[in-house]
Amino acid sequence: MAESLAEFLRRVRVQVDEALDRWLPKPPVCPDIVSEAMRYSVFAGGKRLRPVLVVAAAEATAAHPGGAHAVEGADALRLALPSACAIELIHTYSLIHDDLPAMDNDALRRGRPTLHTIYGDGIAILAGDGLHAEAFTLLAREPAHSGDAAALAARKLRVIRVVGEAAGPAGMVGGQAIDLQAADQVPGYRVTLDRDGLRAMHARKTGALIRAAAVSGAIMTGAADDLVAAIERYAADLGLAFQIIDDVLDVEGTPEQLGKTTGKDAAADKPTYPSLYGIEASRGLAGECVSRARQTLADAGLITSQLTAILDWVVSRKN
Amino acid sequence: MAESLAEFLRRVRVQVDEALDRWLPKPPVCPDIVSEAMRYSVFAGGKRLRPVLVVAAAEATAAHPGGAHAVEGADALRLALPSACAIELIHTYSLIHDDLPAMDNDALRRGRPTLHTIYGDGIAILAGDGLHAEAFTLLAREPAHSGDAAALAARKLRVIRVVGEAAGPAGMVGGQAIDLQAADQVPGYRVTLDRDGLRAMHARKTGALIRAAAVSGAIMTGAADDLVAAIERYAADLGLAFQIIDDVLDVEGTPEQLGKTTGKDAAADKPTYPSLYGIEASRGLAGECVSRARQTLADAGLITSQLTAILDWVVSRKN
Repeated sequence: MAESLAEFLRRVRVQVDEALDRWLPKPPVCPDIVSEAMRYSVFAGGKRLRPVLVVAAAEATAAHPGGAHAVEGADALRLALPSACAIELIHTYSLIHDDLPAMDNDALRRGRPTLHTIYGDGIAILAGDGLHAEAFTLLAREPAHSGDAAALAARKLRVIRVVGEAAGPAGMVGGQAIDLQAADQVPGYRVTLDRDGLRAMHARKTGALIRAAAVSGAIMTGAADDLVAAIERYAADLGLAFQIIDDVLDVEGTPEQLGKTTGKDAAADKPTYPSLYGIEASRGLAGECVSRARQTLADAGLITSQLTAILDWVVSRKN
Repeated sequence: MAESLAEFLRRVRVQVDEALDRWLPKPPVCPDIVSEAMRYSVFAGGKRLRPVLVVAAAEATAAHPGGAHAVEGADALRLALPSACAIELIHTYSLIHDDLPAMDNDALRRGRPTLHTIYGDGIAILAGDGLHAEAFTLLAREPAHSGDAAALAARKLRVIRVVGEAAGPAGMVGGQAIDLQAADQVPGYRVTLDRDGLRAMHARKTGALIRAAAVSGAIMTGAADDLVAAIERYAADLGLAFQIIDDVLDVEGTPEQLGKTTGKDAAADKPTYPSLYGIEASRGLAGECVSRARQTLADAGLITSQLTAILDWVVSRKN
């Protein structure tokens, strides 16, 4: 019987949490306070969307009849797990830094006090930096062996480059900088975003790492280039739908549902999908993204995979 | 005729600056403000100690008679340049973050206003994060080709792991966290450092990345394991000597000489070599490190390389 989405999500989360606990450095290798602070944020009960995408893309491409290399299901998970964990570490570091008073100044995240409210801004910056470095160490180190050593090394290097570009100035970091400028938080450098500018900002800020997650899973199983390209198109639409729904939930959700402060975007006079399109049209746009992504999967012969179920999860979520 | 240290330093700095300019992303690949901010700090006229070490270690091991692989001089530089630049990007990001009000709160660095005093703390955090990610992207990407593809990929992955561990929670980030605790900047987490604790803190905070620099140069030329180990022992002593002299200059130097605020350690009541040993004994300790490092080079057959000249440079510097 096919695995349900709920079963799949539970399986990935258990595997990812177990691997993160094993792979994150512990004292005396690193100081107590850094270990404590990193783990506080990493094990805060996130959705693990990015790891779920890495594993779903790996399992879907491994099972694909046109795959260049035959990869067993268990092998796909083992190949994907380091990328899944590394990308979650990068996502977590970005949340820690974004929550700082110098950025979005958030006191609540995933239903708990943000890291800097507990340890101060200095340790929060360092914990983020530590997770960031650790992500790349992990990508270079794991898995240590898997069949052809030269092929494994080439895939690891390709993933490191994809993840580095997605996380860096051209991707996530660049998007967050534009977001600060749009919220008039950089004196003398304000930018005004129209609809295209908003989409381009989100394509960097959240889209780039979501695309990198799906692409990494496909690369690690040795998927052919056209399959990797299809996975990337799918993830671009998924990422945009995810962000639109995020904007909508910031208006419609409650702090109890979301585990974070709501109404922040409007309070900060930030441009959002609801503010530029209205709530109804925003949900419509998210639906269009999902339709396009579903068609991409159908055309690529991936429609029966968990990648399809993830689309519905992302737009129907309440947090 | 042998190249003088001054000629060597000039050659490496010109090559590194040219490569950094070429490899750092530019608009429209990344937003203007991120590019401006990253370049402001990267091209601030630093000593480039870490790149100099990478290249010196690469050229010394390439010319070594016991080297496992014959590497021409020009090839050694080409192999070393990406690591040299990537490690300088990581060093630069760490200075940007350390200068923030949440950490050391410095307004002056290399004779110019620190980044956050110009763009604000948010953009400074992001510029640092951008340089951090870019360092790993660069290590995975460059050089694109060099003889045996499988050997090159294996060396790149080893360097990424060495650099990631040195920069991360077990290394630089961990050391900076202990430094914050020692300066009583983390309420409830103060630590008191004795002489061993001070040395251990510096071995993480500045020593780890200096060791990684020298080791990366040796790895990229394919040096045998015992040669890499000798280079690492040399760099551990060099790094400690460098830090001791740094502490001494903070007491004896002027802001004009150093291009940064002086007397900060004493003002912050931070433990330093001069505060725990006195100035004279501190200089003596630095001298002992240099003697040990020189012996390590002699034993390894590397005494005629620029690695020897770098030892004298580091302890005789005035800034």
